[in-house]
Amino acid sequence: MGTAVAAGDAAVPAELGHLVRLRLDLGYDGAGFHGWASQPGVRTVQQVVQDALGLLLGLPEPPALTVAGRTDAGVHARGQVAHVDVPAAAWAAVGAAALRRLAGLLPADVRAHAIGAAPAGFDARFSALWRRYSYRVCDDRALADPLRRHDTLSYQTRLDLRLMNRAAAGCLGEHDFAAFCRRREAATTVRALLVLRWDRAGPGVAVATVIADAFCHNMVRALVGCLLAVGDGSRPAGWPAEVLAGRVRDPAVRVMPAFPLVLEQVSYPSAGALAARAEQTRRLRN
Amino acid sequence: MGTAVAAGDAAVPAELGHLVRLRLDLGYDGAGFHGWASQPGVRTVQQVVQDALGLLLGLPEPPALTVAGRTDAGVHARGQVAHVDVPAAAWAAVGAAALRRLAGLLPADVRAHAIGAAPAGFDARFSALWRRYSYRVCDDRALADPLRRHDTLSYQTRLDLRLMNRAAAGCLGEHDFAAFCRRREAATTVRALLVLRWDRAGPGVAVATVIADAFCHNMVRALVGCLLAVGDGSRPAGWPAEVLAGRVRDPAVRVMPAFPLVLEQVSYPSAGALAARAEQTRRLRN
Repeated sequence: MGTAVAAGDAAVPAELGHLVRLRLDLGYDGAGFHGWASQPGVRTVQQVVQDALGLLLGLPEPPALTVAGRTDAGVHARGQVAHVDVPAAAWAAVGAAALRRLAGLLPADVRAHAIGAAPAGFDARFSALWRRYSYRVCDDRALADPLRRHDTLSYQTRLDLRLMNRAAAGCLGEHDFAAFCRRREAATTVRALLVLRWDRAGPGVAVATVIADAFCHNMVRALVGCLLAVGDGSRPAGWPAEVLAGRVRDPAVRVMPAFPLVLEQVSYPSAGALAARAEQTRRLRN
Repeated sequence: MGTAVAAGDAAVPAELGHLVRLRLDLGYDGAGFHGWASQPGVRTVQQVVQDALGLLLGLPEPPALTVAGRTDAGVHARGQVAHVDVPAAAWAAVGAAALRRLAGLLPADVRAHAIGAAPAGFDARFSALWRRYSYRVCDDRALADPLRRHDTLSYQTRLDLRLMNRAAAGCLGEHDFAAFCRRREAATTVRALLVLRWDRAGPGVAVATVIADAFCHNMVRALVGCLLAVGDGSRPAGWPAEVLAGRVRDPAVRVMPAFPLVLEQVSYPSAGALAARAEQTRRLRN
């Protein structure tokens, strides 16, 4: 974030000219990507989108994107949000044709839903209030839909969603989620889990909705694994809350596969509250 | 159909032993197949399922399947139905484990939803009352979901579903659908179109529901092409009925791509009426 400069910021170096911050809303099929974040030698969503933006705006180098949710390899998105600071003149030259032209520059597994100047104080990562993920499971072999096998986990045992939702309720609220996370040095694992709920999305299909202010690495996939063990009867409904209270990574919790996980939505406060929210989050995370 | 013998049929040759007719309910992702029907040198759903059944039942050769809807290359199914006549002893030996074992023998892009002895008089093709297909279109670039790009047509113009449904109503009923079919020698193109309707399945997604007693080749894809031309404003709402009345294949009608087309359901009468329905259909078609 050190080099990102908001539109109208007085510190813009003269040679860059006036910059404008754009908000970009994205969907992608994660199957063909090694996750969001750029890494040398592999195909990532970030690199593909940055390359398309560089071409769209005629920039000498692809501009750097900041994203709301750094999805792992194989994870999909329907409502990813990113921001990017670009020369205002380059943006003005593209104007209303941006979305249509971007569609032509992006591969079929990435779609831009919207692109436009962001409101003052907007930061895709730090202004976000919460992120919503879904995780899709088919628990009835007889109802498996081959057309959805790329984003649906096939589970061998029928799931008791009532028990899973009882277990999930015991994990809600602000906690140290270290038990469900891959540890990272000097980073807090305290998160506010706002929603963790399973619903039937049709016969044989169970979908988890998970909302938190932010997520640690592997957090959704480990929470899902913990609740599936309750739903199939192999663990009691009180187990997930016990694991959580342990505050250390529990090897008994299975981290489920990435391919049924979708970043569905990122929520932001109203325009007037964006900067304050970003300040608050920066203090919390750093 | 000449060699298919119903369970209990007195004409079973002695060397085959007693045969039982099985009903098989299937779903598949059509992308990896050259359609349903077996053809030398290409991968077809029929061949893949027949091979799996041969292994399941320990037969010297794969048994021959008769199907309700002979889907074209790329067309998917969620509710395909087939029947097959197999030695009763081989079926009895597999019994209750059949569906689970079949799941292990089928590739990931084909799933068996059910398998079991068919009621007397059942013929997957000729006993069917009607077939239901769906065709999925996204008409808002900003809402395109990359995860559904394999079964959703991306359409450049916003569609007026009200106009399309008015146009569709003019095609309902029993007609000679030659205008929407690829001609086949000595085969009737008279069909009863029972439902042809467009609905929104979410923001930016329009889905056609098409039900007929049976379909000629390309019929759904040509009907959809005709209605899309109404929905995008390039043709008046009366055009599809005019094309239909012409009773000759109209090159102005675009046959839409196969990949958004799904065979959703095949409907049969109650057990007591199966044989009579099959007789009636055979007379009509042959």
